[in-house]
Amino acid sequence: MSEFCLPVRVYYEDTDAAGVVYYANYLRFIERARTDWLRTLGVDQRTLMENGGIAFAVRSLEADYLKPARLDDELIVHSTLEAVGRAQVVFRQNVMRGEELLFSARVRVVSFDPLTAKAAAIPRAIQEKFKVLEKIAS
Amino acid sequence: MSEFCLPVRVYYEDTDAAGVVYYANYLRFIERARTDWLRTLGVDQRTLMENGGIAFAVRSLEADYLKPARLDDELIVHSTLEAVGRAQVVFRQNVMRGEELLFSARVRVVSFDPLTAKAAAIPRAIQEKFKVLEKIAS
Amino acid sequence: MSEFCLPVRVYYEDTDAAGVVYYANYLRFIERARTDWLRTLGVDQRTLMENGGIAFAVRSLEADYLKPARLDDELIVHSTLEAVGRAQVVFRQNVMRGEELLFSARVRVVSFDPLTAKAAAIPRAIQEKFKVLEKIAS
Amino acid sequence: MSEFCLPVRVYYEDTDAAGVVYYANYLRFIERARTDWLRTLGVDQRTLMENGGIAFAVRSLEADYLKPARLDDELIVHSTLEAVGRAQVVFRQNVMRGEELLFSARVRVVSFDPLTAKAAAIPRAIQEKFKVLEKIAS
Repeated sequence: MSEFCLPVRVYYEDTDAAGVVYYANYLRFIERARTDWLRTLGVDQRTLMENGGIAFAVRSLEADYLKPARLDDELIVHSTLEAVGRAQVVFRQNVMRGEELLFSARVRVVSFDPLTAKAAAIPRAIQEKFKVLEKIAS
Repeated sequence: MSEFCLPVRVYYEDTDAAGVVYYANYLRFIERARTDWLRTLGVDQRTLMENGGIAFAVRSLEADYLKPARLDDELIVHSTLEAVGRAQVVFRQNVMRGEELLFSARVRVVSFDPLTAKAAAIPRAIQEKFKVLEKIAS
Repeated sequence: MSEFCLPVRVYYEDTDAAGVVYYANYLRFIERARTDWLRTLGVDQRTLMENGGIAFAVRSLEADYLKPARLDDELIVHSTLEAVGRAQVVFRQNVMRGEELLFSARVRVVSFDPLTAKAAAIPRAIQEKFKVLEKIAS
Repeated sequence: MSEFCLPVRVYYEDTDAAGVVYYANYLRFIERARTDWLRTLGVDQRTLMENGGIAFAVRSLEADYLKPARLDDELIVHSTLEAVGRAQVVFRQNVMRGEELLFSARVRVVSFDPLTAKAAAIPRAIQEKFKVLEKIAS
């Protein structure tokens, strides 16, 4: 599967006084999707951090807010891989409500050593899984 | 000073679709107040955690939500010490908007070792500062 | 069913620099459970707010933090009804990790008119559903 | 003043289990800065929303995460205006720790009618204030 889909329900905690999902919270939704995708690939971030000394961090992102999500909405986060490098991965992540595209982001994630905060290569086994997904997607 | 006052402004991030401050966010406001109070007493939680192996955690709380706070409100968190023990401190924390009491909580904080997650005595120097504040308050 | 169970996964967004779930975030977890429970009873809070002029708000809570939840944990929020009144409902909500009780709260929720911020009776049809659940639980 | 500076302290609520500020929370920091800047210009968003039927929303953003902020850090959000239109404003917002640039974003904010969710012109008086700031900045 080259696309990973995560359903997300909108709760009060996600909304603001304008009656819509607060703009920062889409970043929470798409992070859940990246994490769960890694998990389905057998990558447990806590174990990685504790044993392997590797953590993932967002290095940059571009985001478009197209339509607002509202309380009780059932959203789907659609994630695909755009590029895979030695120490970085680029995701395209779209938040949909049915057929409507509400939010779209391109997110560059880098791997680093949490002790030194320096870049560190993604472990080979994980890199290969990403490479396969990238190939399927393109 | 036996009472510590922290001003808190309400931003969109704090509100929800009901037009008021989301109920969990009062806990963020009062935690900022506890942290800043510790800081004014010369206690730096990051240094404590890194060097001394001590962190503080909330063990229990009772909270009353009396009136809702709204976007742009200027609130004051009033904190006092109700009790000080070897490994715990009890705070009373009130969130006011002018003369109106919006939220009131009694918060029991314990000190623990973040590596073992077990209770650990509050360092003597900090305990003594708390004791002085407790005495003034009573 | 007199108990409602909601699985909650712990993501980075829920944790803090002490390596555990930030204390305010348990209130987000249990609010999701109350909302989803209402939804399974046919109560849509957005529709209620827009049409019926009723919203629910937490009036008070007591919470015990027994053990910390950590990144990637799979939690279950167990919710039961302790009391049902004309304009209020009292929930007991426990957050478990397997057999371990991590967090337990008693939450009193009141219904109010969001325009006036005054108490308002819970619509009869919803009250009756709550009454049935309360009876089963006791 | 063509630049607006807002100090932001990092609390536990802002951090995550990797020991750094959670990536979505920089968006909270910079939103506080935009809001406070508007306020110093005499623009009260709640009044605008209630009376004028205008709200501001982020339409797109590009963000670079350069270095992580940590617990207790004292940050400054530096905001400038890059462009001002009839129904949109573009901000550059940098989060600094002393001389270090930690985070930089370009944020396009649009004005809309919260009832219809359609674009709506920024009230003339506010537009003129923005224009002056834009001119000074360039």
